[in-house]
Amino acid sequence: MIKIILLGYGNVGSHLLNAFLKSDSVQVLQVYNRSAVELPRAAQNIPVIYNLEALDDADIYILSVSDDVIGEISENLPFTNRLVVHTSGAAAMDVLSKKNRRGVFYPLQTFSKNKTPDFKTIPICLEAENPEDYKRLEALASILSKQISAIDSSQRAKIHVAAVFVNNFTNYLYQIGQNLLEESNISFDLLLPLIRETAEKIETLPPEQAQTGPAKRNDRGTIEKHLNALQRESDKKLYATITELIQKHHNKNEL
Amino acid sequence: MIKIILLGYGNVGSHLLNAFLKSDSVQVLQVYNRSAVELPRAAQNIPVIYNLEALDDADIYILSVSDDVIGEISENLPFTNRLVVHTSGAAAMDVLSKKNRRGVFYPLQTFSKNKTPDFKTIPICLEAENPEDYKRLEALASILSKQISAIDSSQRAKIHVAAVFVNNFTNYLYQIGQNLLEESNISFDLLLPLIRETAEKIETLPPEQAQTGPAKRNDRGTIEKHLNALQRESDKKLYATITELIQKHHNKNEL
Repeated sequence: MIKIILLGYGNVGSHLLNAFLKSDSVQVLQVYNRSAVELPRAAQNIPVIYNLEALDDADIYILSVSDDVIGEISENLPFTNRLVVHTSGAAAMDVLSKKNRRGVFYPLQTFSKNKTPDFKTIPICLEAENPEDYKRLEALASILSKQISAIDSSQRAKIHVAAVFVNNFTNYLYQIGQNLLEESNISFDLLLPLIRETAEKIETLPPEQAQTGPAKRNDRGTIEKHLNALQRESDKKLYATITELIQKHHNKNEL
Repeated sequence: MIKIILLGYGNVGSHLLNAFLKSDSVQVLQVYNRSAVELPRAAQNIPVIYNLEALDDADIYILSVSDDVIGEISENLPFTNRLVVHTSGAAAMDVLSKKNRRGVFYPLQTFSKNKTPDFKTIPICLEAENPEDYKRLEALASILSKQISAIDSSQRAKIHVAAVFVNNFTNYLYQIGQNLLEESNISFDLLLPLIRETAEKIETLPPEQAQTGPAKRNDRGTIEKHLNALQRESDKKLYATITELIQKHHNKNEL
């Protein structure tokens, strides 16, 4: 039985709690939060504490808090030499106070308030200062997921930027698609099968090979037509920018 | 029984043929192509012709050819006043020669050579010059798909630009994600669950509400860190451009 304490109860913290509750191999001793929280029914026996001094003795302390308070909260922990990890993709491990043994437990996924994630398919990126602690984190992660990777802080920083491109920026492209359709009174639903297929395609075909479209074909007639069809200056500019990048990338490879 | 003839046997033409072969309500009389093609085993009884003069009498002629030859081929058809449609998202209906009754049969999806698409979930966008022909196209489309929409040429032009954003451009963002991970010797597979979730999320949440990340939060510390982590100038520029667009969009809505 692995005894853990969760510090912070936002999106990640609450989904982690729900996932751990389903396992008999993990015991969540306490949940710490700065402001009042209500735990789900299945967690009614778990004490919520609002004072770091009230923290119990656990195997792993998991900080799921904003990046900018990881340092402060870890520094204020009323003990030393225990295993303390954060769950952030953007923060390095050494943001955590040195007074405890440090690690990272980063589930690589986008979490929504109202959607229960399937942790089995979520990659968990682990980092620890020493091999014994890494094994402890691995034991905990393997309860949730089948995909566990050793990722150091500099690799995790790269993953986090990459995630912004494929998640945040992609979602913004979806938003543009929706705007364009709504301008012509067409339901955005019409694009959903294409969006889904675009995401699924790269599970079997690398993006480089999956690339299609007027930019890849260097079809100047269609590109011109598209630029004329776009009404907003910002859409035109983004269309031209990405088209040029695709053209450069694929022409370069043809030389 | 609807009698059709396919003209052109590229990606769209071949997938259409395979889909029609599965139905008892459609008979594919001939396949026309300019260069030699080999039909699948199930289509061995269908004659392939290489001369427009050899075309039979059909209810609907479907041109799945490059946009730039739609006009020419339709003009060279050796008959008049029959129903002739193209399958292009980018071309207007009036690109087709006036000598026949014109229409469009546009399946809104990205097709890959080696992956059989599930037409049931593919929206088919229809246009015709008169209501009777529209009904004919609708009867044909309903054999393949549950999602049929009446879309005129100006709407289809918008859809086609939108498809470039959510398909071609999104795929390019995936490509950047892959490059970034490979720079740090991390497998691109790690991002696949995030990519899939990003695409699925907007089936229940509009992109506007699904937007997350440092740009949306206006988290300048993380944005700065990301820009420093990016090595290629083109990635930096694109990161800055889309970040600014997201910031503008979401700040505007807060005012």
